[in-house]
Amino acid sequence: MADTIVVPPETPGTDTEVRPQLREIGRSMPRLESTAKVDGSAEYIHNLRLPGMLYGRIHRSAIAHGRIVRIDASAALAVDGVHAVVTADEVATLVPDPYYGPALHDQPILATGKVRHVGEPVAVVLASDPHVAEEAADLVSVEYAPLEAVFDEVAAAAPGAPILHDELKPAGTFTDLEHLAGRRGTNVALDARLRCGDVEEGFARADHLFEHTFRTGKVTHTTFEPMVSVAEPHGTNGLTIHTSSQSPSFVRTEISRLLGWPENRVRVRTAFLGGGFGAKLYIKLEAMAAVCALLVGKPVRIALTMDEQFSTITKHGATVRIKTGVTRDGRMIARQVETFWNGGAYADIGPRVTQKSGFTAAGPYDIEHIKLDNYAVYTNDPPAGALRGFGISQLVWAYERQSDIIARTLGIDPLEFRRRNALRNGGRHATGTIVYGMEIDAVLDRLAEEMEWHRPIDRGSGTVRRGRGIAIGVKACVSPTTSTAAVHVNGDGSCAVHASTVDMGQASDTTLAQIAAEVLGLPTAAIRVVHPDTDVTPYDMATLGSRSTFHMGNAVRGAAEDARGQLLRIAAGALGVVIDDLECTDGAIVSRTGTRMTFRDVMRARFAMQAGTIVGLGAYTPSYKKPDLETGRSPDITPFWMLGGAGAEIEVDCETGRISVARLVNVADVGRAINPASVERQLTSAAIMQTGFTLFEEMALSDGQVLNASLADYKIPGLLDLPRELTGSFVEIPHRDGPFGAKGVGETGVFSPSPAIANALYDATGVMVYETPLTPERVLRAIREAEGRPLERQ
Amino acid sequence: MADTIVVPPETPGTDTEVRPQLREIGRSMPRLESTAKVDGSAEYIHNLRLPGMLYGRIHRSAIAHGRIVRIDASAALAVDGVHAVVTADEVATLVPDPYYGPALHDQPILATGKVRHVGEPVAVVLASDPHVAEEAADLVSVEYAPLEAVFDEVAAAAPGAPILHDELKPAGTFTDLEHLAGRRGTNVALDARLRCGDVEEGFARADHLFEHTFRTGKVTHTTFEPMVSVAEPHGTNGLTIHTSSQSPSFVRTEISRLLGWPENRVRVRTAFLGGGFGAKLYIKLEAMAAVCALLVGKPVRIALTMDEQFSTITKHGATVRIKTGVTRDGRMIARQVETFWNGGAYADIGPRVTQKSGFTAAGPYDIEHIKLDNYAVYTNDPPAGALRGFGISQLVWAYERQSDIIARTLGIDPLEFRRRNALRNGGRHATGTIVYGMEIDAVLDRLAEEMEWHRPIDRGSGTVRRGRGIAIGVKACVSPTTSTAAVHVNGDGSCAVHASTVDMGQASDTTLAQIAAEVLGLPTAAIRVVHPDTDVTPYDMATLGSRSTFHMGNAVRGAAEDARGQLLRIAAGALGVVIDDLECTDGAIVSRTGTRMTFRDVMRARFAMQAGTIVGLGAYTPSYKKPDLETGRSPDITPFWMLGGAGAEIEVDCETGRISVARLVNVADVGRAINPASVERQLTSAAIMQTGFTLFEEMALSDGQVLNASLADYKIPGLLDLPRELTGSFVEIPHRDGPFGAKGVGETGVFSPSPAIANALYDATGVMVYETPLTPERVLRAIREAEGRPLERQ
Repeated sequence: MADTIVVPPETPGTDTEVRPQLREIGRSMPRLESTAKVDGSAEYIHNLRLPGMLYGRIHRSAIAHGRIVRIDASAALAVDGVHAVVTADEVATLVPDPYYGPALHDQPILATGKVRHVGEPVAVVLASDPHVAEEAADLVSVEYAPLEAVFDEVAAAAPGAPILHDELKPAGTFTDLEHLAGRRGTNVALDARLRCGDVEEGFARADHLFEHTFRTGKVTHTTFEPMVSVAEPHGTNGLTIHTSSQSPSFVRTEISRLLGWPENRVRVRTAFLGGGFGAKLYIKLEAMAAVCALLVGKPVRIALTMDEQFSTITKHGATVRIKTGVTRDGRMIARQVETFWNGGAYADIGPRVTQKSGFTAAGPYDIEHIKLDNYAVYTNDPPAGALRGFGISQLVWAYERQSDIIARTLGIDPLEFRRRNALRNGGRHATGTIVYGMEIDAVLDRLAEEMEWHRPIDRGSGTVRRGRGIAIGVKACVSPTTSTAAVHVNGDGSCAVHASTVDMGQASDTTLAQIAAEVLGLPTAAIRVVHPDTDVTPYDMATLGSRSTFHMGNAVRGAAEDARGQLLRIAAGALGVVIDDLECTDGAIVSRTGTRMTFRDVMRARFAMQAGTIVGLGAYTPSYKKPDLETGRSPDITPFWMLGGAGAEIEVDCETGRISVARLVNVADVGRAINPASVERQLTSAAIMQTGFTLFEEMALSDGQVLNASLADYKIPGLLDLPRELTGSFVEIPHRDGPFGAKGVGETGVFSPSPAIANALYDATGVMVYETPLTPERVLRAIREAEGRPLERQ
Repeated sequence: MADTIVVPPETPGTDTEVRPQLREIGRSMPRLESTAKVDGSAEYIHNLRLPGMLYGRIHRSAIAHGRIVRIDASAALAVDGVHAVVTADEVATLVPDPYYGPALHDQPILATGKVRHVGEPVAVVLASDPHVAEEAADLVSVEYAPLEAVFDEVAAAAPGAPILHDELKPAGTFTDLEHLAGRRGTNVALDARLRCGDVEEGFARADHLFEHTFRTGKVTHTTFEPMVSVAEPHGTNGLTIHTSSQSPSFVRTEISRLLGWPENRVRVRTAFLGGGFGAKLYIKLEAMAAVCALLVGKPVRIALTMDEQFSTITKHGATVRIKTGVTRDGRMIARQVETFWNGGAYADIGPRVTQKSGFTAAGPYDIEHIKLDNYAVYTNDPPAGALRGFGISQLVWAYERQSDIIARTLGIDPLEFRRRNALRNGGRHATGTIVYGMEIDAVLDRLAEEMEWHRPIDRGSGTVRRGRGIAIGVKACVSPTTSTAAVHVNGDGSCAVHASTVDMGQASDTTLAQIAAEVLGLPTAAIRVVHPDTDVTPYDMATLGSRSTFHMGNAVRGAAEDARGQLLRIAAGALGVVIDDLECTDGAIVSRTGTRMTFRDVMRARFAMQAGTIVGLGAYTPSYKKPDLETGRSPDITPFWMLGGAGAEIEVDCETGRISVARLVNVADVGRAINPASVERQLTSAAIMQTGFTLFEEMALSDGQVLNASLADYKIPGLLDLPRELTGSFVEIPHRDGPFGAKGVGETGVFSPSPAIANALYDATGVMVYETPLTPERVLRAIREAEGRPLERQ
């Protein structure tokens, strides 16, 4: 309803509201499930055990690329307690075309004919004891005929590279990818371009040209609850899949497509997730578990160990070639960016990462001539998909490192340089979309304020140098996309929100409950959020891309408003007053004259009983115009823009190369913070995650083999690695389309910490680093190189 | 939508339709779940096992009435493996006021202070092994101070009887019972009356007066899946109760009331039921299991053995005093009925049985002066509640036995006697409600036809006499009441119906699916019915009283029509045509010009994606006027009337008294048969059940102790007991308010077999029997009595 959109679009920059007061929105509150998570009663699929359940353990490829000559399961089958060994042959009896994927149908349920990366699932051993299954999985013996492999994304995109997939088969899910159909003889799963102006003309007019190549290392999600799927067959009734998924609706559609079943025979339910970060999107273990369960007619659980997750899904390493033309007064007028995304052996959502982040590769800047080319490239590394930020941090790493190089070269203050080039609301983005609700000045101002940018800093002493840096990045939100929701109001006024949004730690349950509570005049605690179950909660695209607060928030707001409308109509009829004289407040329907009807009274008026259910429905589908294939241009490319800035103060020990982050400031424009404490935690936790990727996290790969696939060898941030001072700060300028003005915020904190830290290193030492992570060795090498006394390679 | 109401009210008696053709409605089809029930994949709560679950075993009262002096659980607790023993003291720590019940709050979760019947639950032993729990339950020792008990319903209602309950506390669920509040010193839980005309004046004007007392024995439900509830605590998240219940919505409301929790903290789910028949309504084991689970913080399963069911819920035995004044030409002009309902120790739904069946105690007859008094009476027998027919068969037993006595006395053919007195559509029922859709002539005609009434029968030979009899009975449907439903349409056109109707063998899933399929132009197999789950399926009063096809059918029809309307609106917008040019048929939206949109096309038009959920909602609350307390009159007493007739041909062996039913014909007016095969099975299975109650089923009670509480001692019909010829026949005159004209039919088959069989005995032998069951001994005694050579009592 219009009256809940709190600020008219013509008055951005103010925080005042048309609605007199908000009670539940804007209040920091603990998550609804916080006690349950402490006392152990919160549900995780990992804890699910079903009677008669078998445990599946995966035998994985030992080579990066090769044909499968023979699989010998006899030794595995001979182990006492082994129930079955499933290979592609058994899969084929149920699923003749076993290839799945959200963008391309390229990934087989089990390796079929060939393997394309080390760690690819080749067989599943099923046993009633998980240790038996593990032991037997090691005994499966596979003979391969090796093929030439390729691991570098630039090399893989070049002519003559070994080809991983014979032909591209678009999934049909995204109409923007349909032009790929039938492409053969290429490892480029998508080339997404943007053309705005004439970049060559721009370069010709520029006073300075800057050209660099930046790279980001390969990292992974390390969710603390590893992936798990339990498939439970129901004979002729179909199948339930209990899974730690971020996209239950997608799992249902895809599994029913693979099996050739109607969607209503496949029920997919999720619970709380112990982290997702994009790892648990689309199909991961679900198809494998489903097929195994159907083959043996028993429930089958497949759960990964932490090390198996490293070969399952990763974040794209990327090579970004960026060339920018700048006038002498520091205005960027032309930018060309060529990005090679290392997608690994299967596309997963890589082509969409490529496309969706790709068109923002020029940054939040007003640049006249822009030419962007993005290549989603198959390699024989483990597959890459979505990881918090959907490709944005790789691009920000490049363009914001370059921003500081340009600023320093031209002698412009880095903050001023960004202000001078900022793309402001009302301006036209390179895609052609007019920008609204991207609050770059507010973010830069807040960043300056929190960093005390006007004040010089201590530059360090001895071998310890200090410096500071900033960076800003922008992301568009996913489209086309839909969220639908229902709100059930019970006889006592307690409510259930039905939403397919997955709460994976981001506090979405609480946020959605706050929205429903605000609309219905109830305390947030009166709302229960029913977790995703495709038989129950209506369709939602997925929990990804910072879309839940905005998209599902709008759907829940709509559903709650629908329910409120029904309650008010019933009450108006019963009381003989007009609806406008009534409001839903304090758990009752109250008229201007003070007459009160409880929810029970309303039920009695509606249903002639004191019980009943009033169901409200809501759906949200933002407008969207598919970009032109040749130019990448669209007048309506995103429902909203996210802008995130970071500022870092660091110390670097020039003897060891070790960086220590003294202070990390994050600022996001959030529209409105539904639950300010949650927003702050989203920003700081994202910054911590990104700090790990910046300073030390990296998958060590050798011929496609992950050498450090365990939390012992792959370091994630511990308490001692945290910035000594860490803030998550936000500016609130309500967005006209967001629920109560809110925008998403789950990813914004990852955009900018990497270049902010590297820019601080540059500020401290003058040393250039082009690749993450900034390990002590890499930093020390750069310092020594700059000092003219390079370290020897070991 | 109006166009689906198939016959305008002014044209009853025709079977033609406005709508050109129905595809799914009116087709006999196997139940959707038939394969799953054969292959074992159909879900029953009885099969549910949860990790860490404890088994509860009930220690029950050994006496009929007494104070509890002391409970000694030490021996039980000493058994290895016993986890806890729960008594009223422990219950009180969670639930200070532990009394529940749908009509009156009179039944404690565990006996509190006193016991009121043999077999009343006093303590629950919890153990991880069910056999340990059983052994230990026997070791609980309870010391009682016995109180005087009363078992006969007439004696219990008389002054001076021992009083079971200090004070009546109406539950508040039914506003018609609120006047009982605060009554003390009585065992009458409800006296429900009806006054129409002046019965004394009628008797004075009558030429003949007939006065008899009839009785029906106490019987029970013997559901093959005994009651079971599994309560699963979720810490601060609340509680899920998995239960074999016919009324999940009620369980939630009542458990949340007992615990003082919001309703959305209590989730109640059911699965298929292995029979219900009214036994599994309201609270049975749910409160006990819930409290035990919360006390120990683990899932608790309580399941009954068959013998425990006998002390849990029964069918009211009744004493019916009926006096009728008749003119010499066979018109009944005055009738007085006084009924004492033996409700046992706790009211359960007894007061509503008393009231709802009570007002039909004069039968489907047009009688000018009527006086009805119904007494719901507490006794120290096990509690009585609803059993298929909700008290109707007890009353029909009385008035239809008397019909034949009157007819024979006046020399009128029994069929003609009924025709002469029939209450016809447009006439006024004793309550004051104008009768509509009660097809007495059609039922009598069909009965005459099937019985070949015009043709004399073989009267038998030797000691075997043959006779035939008919009977008809009427029932009103429950009101006030509400059903709500949702229909979810998936991207591929497969659907899920969300309804809280419990499929307990009556094929409601299939019936509801047929209704949704018809509206949406889909095959019935495309519809999946999601089973009751209070977090999911919206409110339904309960599965009882033959209301599901009519009430929930209307709600589902409305929900499907809502979904269809949305689909058509979206398609009309996308195709640029008006809605009236479109229809939902053959799994697509088709225009008059032949343009076709698949459901996926519609989703894409609506959601910009090929997936999505269109949710339609429906609710049905029939109109109702609460009857006047003094006169029992109401102009709008029922949503529809059910009329059931039966005809029996029997042989009786005069040497043994054994009755053998040669033929049993059942006829019901069903409005429209959604699934004719199901309707026929409902009628014949009800007739078989009632045949058992008629011929041999009876609980043998001695001082409140059930002597035959097992299927070995309590005989239910076996294959050899079936009528040799059994038909379930129906007349279809669409009801203006039913979904596609349908009325409910689950109970109709039980109304009339008992008097039809006894009337046949009367026809065969001239012998009068006033009480069911017609055991060989009782029949032989009556025959010998009539022959003047009575059998000695043993």
